[in-house]
Amino acid sequence: MAKSWVNSAERIGADLHLELSASGGRRAALIDALRAAVRDGRLAPGTRLPPYRSLAADLGVARNTVADAYAELVAEGWLTARQGSGTRVAERAQPPRHAVKGPVTAPPRARAPRHDLRQGTPDASAFPRAAWLASYRRALQQAPDEVFGPGDPAGRVELREALTEYLARARGVRTAPDRIVICSGFAHGLRLLFGQGAGGPLRGPLAVEAYGLGFHRKLLRVAGVRTVPLPVDEQGARVEELGKERAVLLTPAHQFPTGGPLHAERRAAVIDWARARGGVVLEDDYDGEFRYDRKPVGALQGLDPERVILLGSVSKSLSPALRLGWMVLPERYVEGVLAAKGEREAWASVLDQLSLADFIVSGSYDRHVRRMRQRYRSRRDRLVAALAARAPHIEVTGVAAGLHAVLRLPPGTERSALKAAAWQGVALDGLAAFRHPEAGTEARAGAGAEDQDGLVVGYATPSEAAFGAALDALCEVLPPDGQTGVPAAG
Amino acid sequence: MAKSWVNSAERIGADLHLELSASGGRRAALIDALRAAVRDGRLAPGTRLPPYRSLAADLGVARNTVADAYAELVAEGWLTARQGSGTRVAERAQPPRHAVKGPVTAPPRARAPRHDLRQGTPDASAFPRAAWLASYRRALQQAPDEVFGPGDPAGRVELREALTEYLARARGVRTAPDRIVICSGFAHGLRLLFGQGAGGPLRGPLAVEAYGLGFHRKLLRVAGVRTVPLPVDEQGARVEELGKERAVLLTPAHQFPTGGPLHAERRAAVIDWARARGGVVLEDDYDGEFRYDRKPVGALQGLDPERVILLGSVSKSLSPALRLGWMVLPERYVEGVLAAKGEREAWASVLDQLSLADFIVSGSYDRHVRRMRQRYRSRRDRLVAALAARAPHIEVTGVAAGLHAVLRLPPGTERSALKAAAWQGVALDGLAAFRHPEAGTEARAGAGAEDQDGLVVGYATPSEAAFGAALDALCEVLPPDGQTGVPAAG
Repeated sequence: MAKSWVNSAERIGADLHLELSASGGRRAALIDALRAAVRDGRLAPGTRLPPYRSLAADLGVARNTVADAYAELVAEGWLTARQGSGTRVAERAQPPRHAVKGPVTAPPRARAPRHDLRQGTPDASAFPRAAWLASYRRALQQAPDEVFGPGDPAGRVELREALTEYLARARGVRTAPDRIVICSGFAHGLRLLFGQGAGGPLRGPLAVEAYGLGFHRKLLRVAGVRTVPLPVDEQGARVEELGKERAVLLTPAHQFPTGGPLHAERRAAVIDWARARGGVVLEDDYDGEFRYDRKPVGALQGLDPERVILLGSVSKSLSPALRLGWMVLPERYVEGVLAAKGEREAWASVLDQLSLADFIVSGSYDRHVRRMRQRYRSRRDRLVAALAARAPHIEVTGVAAGLHAVLRLPPGTERSALKAAAWQGVALDGLAAFRHPEAGTEARAGAGAEDQDGLVVGYATPSEAAFGAALDALCEVLPPDGQTGVPAAG
Repeated sequence: MAKSWVNSAERIGADLHLELSASGGRRAALIDALRAAVRDGRLAPGTRLPPYRSLAADLGVARNTVADAYAELVAEGWLTARQGSGTRVAERAQPPRHAVKGPVTAPPRARAPRHDLRQGTPDASAFPRAAWLASYRRALQQAPDEVFGPGDPAGRVELREALTEYLARARGVRTAPDRIVICSGFAHGLRLLFGQGAGGPLRGPLAVEAYGLGFHRKLLRVAGVRTVPLPVDEQGARVEELGKERAVLLTPAHQFPTGGPLHAERRAAVIDWARARGGVVLEDDYDGEFRYDRKPVGALQGLDPERVILLGSVSKSLSPALRLGWMVLPERYVEGVLAAKGEREAWASVLDQLSLADFIVSGSYDRHVRRMRQRYRSRRDRLVAALAARAPHIEVTGVAAGLHAVLRLPPGTERSALKAAAWQGVALDGLAAFRHPEAGTEARAGAGAEDQDGLVVGYATPSEAAFGAALDALCEVLPPDGQTGVPAAG
C-alpha cells in the first residue's frame, strides 16, 4: 500500500505530471494522486497548481473532473484557493516531521517459550470451537433486532438469567438476574468496584492475601487503592488478622497461588467480620469449577449474599479471549457499579454474551467444564507421579484443584531453579513473584507460607501434545535432594 | 423467554453443587442437601436431576444411596419420577424463600417508544447477520490456538492491519498497525486517553464543541477532566477561539449534531494550532463513511498523523452491540494508552476482532456500508421531501450525511414540540439536550447555533418497515407556521 503513494506524481517545471491509477473513477484517482504528491512533499507548500484546463488536457479528463478534485482537496485542507492567485498547496500541508513508521507489518511478538508452564490460562488448544460456533449461530439467528441497538449496561438479561441458574446449581450462589452485572473479566470488575476515578462504590484500603496476582495489586495501586497484605497459611488467609479495612479480597475455593481452600471456620469468621464491621468480602472465584478430589466447596457468597461480591469469568473455564465475566452483587452496590460502567457502555460483546447464555443453557458449558476437569486432573496426577518418581523430595502443596500447582522447594533454591528453567526453555514463575511487597514483615514474625520457596506450575497451559515434554523438562530443572540455597549475591 | 431459562438444567450430567454434612449417614445427608437446594430455589421446578450413576460418582457415594434418596424425595413430593423423563424437581415444590430478591425474572424494561427517532444507532434490523456469521465462522475455524490464550492489549494484529488498509482507502488516514489500539468504542477510547485515574497520556482541560453528546462530557467530568465549550456555527467549531487548552475534541466530517463539516480553513487552522502549541486534536470520526451528496471529506488525521488522534468504531456502521472501536495514535501516545489499558486486559472480544478483520478484508464491510448509505440517503431524502410538502417553514440544516438530521424550529418552540412528540409516542431529542452547560455565555455574546431551537432526528434508527409511520408522526408534531414559543413556565 505504501508503494502506491510513491512515484504517483512527478512535478516537471510548472506542469504537473500525474499517473492516475486505472481502477476507480477519474476524479477519485486524481484526488488520490494529488493528495499523495502533497503528502510525500513532492508538491511543496505554496506551489501553484496548473489551471483546470491545462491539467485536464494533459491528463485527458474533463475540466470539471479537475475542478471537482481541486475543490475536494481544498475542502480537506490540502490546497487553498484564493481569488487571483489560483489554487496552491496549503502552507500547512507539510509532510509530518516523522514519516509514519512503516512498512505495514506486525510488531515483533515475544517468542513463545519452548515449554510454557506459566499459570493463568486454560489449554488454548482445547477451546470447544464447534460447540461455541453452534451457540453463536443460534444466538445470532434467534436474536431479536433490538439486540443490535444500544445495550443494557448490566449486560444481556438472557446471560444474567443463565448465570443465576448455573451459579446456583454449580457454585451454591444465591442471587437474581438483577444482581448480576456482566463485565469483561475480573480486572474490569475490580475497576468498576473501585472506581477508575469514576466513583465506583468501594473505597480502599483493601485487605488482600499476601500471595496473589501482581497485576491485580498494580491495577488497584494505579486506581489509588492501598492494599494491605493478610498472611496466608495452609488453611487460606488468616482472616482473624483483618484490621480496620472495610473490604477484603479472597480466593476462598483455592487460595491463589498457594492452593489451600479457606478453612470452614475462617469462612464463617470472615462473614461475621463483614457483618460486624459493615464490611464486604470480594470473592475471586477464579477456578471454583475445578476440584478433583471431591465436589468443590460452594462459594462463600452463598453464606451471605449481602456481604459478599462474587467475581467470576470464563477466562479459566473457556478462554480469556472472550473477555466475559460477571459480578454477583449485594443489592446496595448494583447502582454504583452500573454508574461506574456508564450509561452507554455495554463493554462486553453482546453477541458473545448471547452465545454464552446459549452455551450454558444448552449444556455445552457443563460438558466442556467436565471434559477439562478430567484433562487437568489427569495432568495434575501425572505431575504428582512424575515428582514422586524423579524428585520425591519436592512436595506438591495445596488441594487437588485448579489449573496450577505449587511445588515447594528447599529454602533458598527458588532463584536458581528459575534460572535453570529459563536455561532449559521452561517458562514458569516462582512464588516470590506473587508475594505482596509489604508481606515480608509479618512473615518473619509469624509462620506461614511467606518465607517459602516454590515454583508455580501452570499445568493447564500446554496443549495435550506438549504436556509430556514440558513435564520432563520441568523435572530436569528441579534442585536435587539435599541442596540448600546459596544466598544470592545479586 | 424467562421461562425457558428457568428450566434450563434439562440435561444429563448437569453440574449440581451439593454439600453433604459430615454427620449422619450419606443417605440422610444427601436427602437434606437436595431438599435444601429445592427449597431455596437453586434447583428450579422442572429441573432434571443427574442420573444415579453420575451423581454417585461425583459425590463418592454408592449408586443405591442416590437411588434411595431420590425415592424418598419423590415420596415426600419434592421430586417427580416419570418413565422416560427421569427424575425432576416437582412443579409445586416450594418457591424460594430467598434472602435475595426474587423471583428469577427479567427486570422491567423501559418500554420501547412507538416511533423511535432517537439519534445514535443504525437500523438494528439491518445487521448483516449472514455475512457476519460467515466471517465469524471463518475466523473461528482458521484461528491458531494461541488466539485462545492471553491477548495483546493493543488488539489482534489481523484487525489492526485490516484497519490500516481500510482507513487509508476510505478515510485518507495515514497510519500503521502498531499505531492502532483496539478498544470497545469511542467512550472507552476517551477513558484510555484521559486515564481513569490510571494515567492515560492526556490531561484536561479539553476543548469540546459547544454541541455534543452529554454522556461524553459526563464521562470526562467523572474522570476529572474539565471541558471548555467551543462555539459552533455552520462551518463547524470556531477553532480560532481555542484558548490555553492543549487538546480539542472535534467532529470534523460532520459536526455532531448540528451537521456542518469543519471548513477547510478551520481544518488547516486547527492543525497549525496543534503544531504551534504542542497540542493534539481528537477526531471523532463517528459517521465519516456516510456522506450522500459527494465523496466524504477525508479524515483530518491525514493532514498530520502526529497531531491528530482519530477515534472510530463500528457502532454506527454495523452495530453498537459488537463493542469494537479503534484509536489511531501519534507515536508518542501509543505506550501511554497501552499502559492505561493494562497488561492483561484485551477488553474487546478477540473472536469479534478476528471476525471484523475478515469482514473488512473479504469486502463485506464495504458492501454493507454501501447498502446502508443508500438506505439512509433515501430516508434523508424522504424526510426532506416530507417537510417540503407538509412543513415548508421547517429547515433541515447541515449537509446530506450521517444518520441524523437537525430540523431548525421557530425560536422558543423546541420544548413544546418535544412535549407534542412525547404525547404522540415519537421519541427524539431537542438541540438543548446536546448543548454544553457552559455554552450559554458565548452564545449570547456571539452568533452561532447556541441559541437555536431544533429537533435532532435519528432517521436511521427505525426499521425500514417502521420508517414511514415514524416520518408521518414526526410531521404531525412539528409546530405550525408562524408559531412562536411561549416562554415555558417550568
